[in-house]
Amino acid sequence: MFPGPLGMSLAGRALNEGRWRCDPLQIRDFATDRHRSVDDTPAGGGAGMVLRADVVAAAIDHAAATAPDLPLIAMTPRGRPLSQARVRALAAGPGVTLLCGRFEGFDERLFEARAIEEVSIGDYVLSGGEMGALVLLDACIRLLPGVMGAASSGDEESFESGLLEYPHYTRPQMWEGRTIPEVLRSGDHARIAAWRKSKAETDTRLRRPDLWERHEGARVQPPSGARREKD
Amino acid sequence: MFPGPLGMSLAGRALNEGRWRCDPLQIRDFATDRHRSVDDTPAGGGAGMVLRADVVAAAIDHAAATAPDLPLIAMTPRGRPLSQARVRALAAGPGVTLLCGRFEGFDERLFEARAIEEVSIGDYVLSGGEMGALVLLDACIRLLPGVMGAASSGDEESFESGLLEYPHYTRPQMWEGRTIPEVLRSGDHARIAAWRKSKAETDTRLRRPDLWERHEGARVQPPSGARREKD
Repeated sequence: MFPGPLGMSLAGRALNEGRWRCDPLQIRDFATDRHRSVDDTPAGGGAGMVLRADVVAAAIDHAAATAPDLPLIAMTPRGRPLSQARVRALAAGPGVTLLCGRFEGFDERLFEARAIEEVSIGDYVLSGGEMGALVLLDACIRLLPGVMGAASSGDEESFESGLLEYPHYTRPQMWEGRTIPEVLRSGDHARIAAWRKSKAETDTRLRRPDLWERHEGARVQPPSGARREKD
Repeated sequence: MFPGPLGMSLAGRALNEGRWRCDPLQIRDFATDRHRSVDDTPAGGGAGMVLRADVVAAAIDHAAATAPDLPLIAMTPRGRPLSQARVRALAAGPGVTLLCGRFEGFDERLFEARAIEEVSIGDYVLSGGEMGALVLLDACIRLLPGVMGAASSGDEESFESGLLEYPHYTRPQMWEGRTIPEVLRSGDHARIAAWRKSKAETDTRLRRPDLWERHEGARVQPPSGARREKD
């Protein structure tokens, strides 16, 4: 699973260049019985299996001893939705320890007993946390110094300003009777910038009213004069 | 990239059993010049490269001719957020053609000229659409008949009822001074079900007020008597 797809393309090149690395731990190696059990049936009944607090905690404690001072994140649908702001903060930090579950998830006592941030990559259910970890890592790796190159800092991308990105066009100028918008061929940089800003705002309002409301909320200065932070 | 991590574990076993399959197409094979170019600089200037409408359309048209009647989804941060309801509908359908971009994305004219559903897996930016496609496929594959087994239909999971899932516990009964909640050890199935429902509601309200509002909104019957559909 790791590095898996992160061993290819942009992230793979960065891996080969030593810009990031990944040290997978197998939770099963921390089981204490001869069957190497990591899970057991849910207390109170129900389908599936639950990952044992004691076994997972042993894996967590080993990771913490090996790489201290890293934030510890568990990939779970009950977690806080991953945001580009969180991705940017993680990419600027010392690294991260990612905890990936399978089956029905972790024994809840783990989250009381260890400092674990629960993160979800979206409102759907995956077969395990590994896919979520790959997504989180990919989002972070592309922001590491030298990975995308200076030309693509990502500053104008979707979510960086709380908006969707404006639409893109490229050659051919005429395709199936459709042209590139005139303004983009004008060479007038101020007009182009204004058009892109307007499109980003319109598209966000129409496609993602939830994002638009948060964006507008962040822009409004409260009457108290205490300025709200835009993140 | 494909099947990549989907060749392992639950999805991998299902792949070997013939419960799903994946036929990757390389967009570069549809380029028409001798350099096999798939991208060009953005009209109006700016960083990065944009995938050409003509080349990508040729790949799309080839896929549509090979596997007609499949919904066509492009993985893009400008798309509609993926939901468990959309995952369930796709898993129940005939399959899907997934379009994965790299660089700055696709020439926007593609979305006007072909029937493409734009889908985003979350509010963050990835290095390409492949990771999003892997996530979408993983979410669908686990719901295919025979993949999870009859015992785990997934009906009680996060998002299936518009709520986060209740917390799980398993043996050992006492761990680091923490016990499993008494009700889960009571054997009283009605009390257990009520406790789980209550926990799912409380956790959703506290952790995801956005989900909770939608859930409550869907539960309220409008005064007109016209019942809103819960999806």
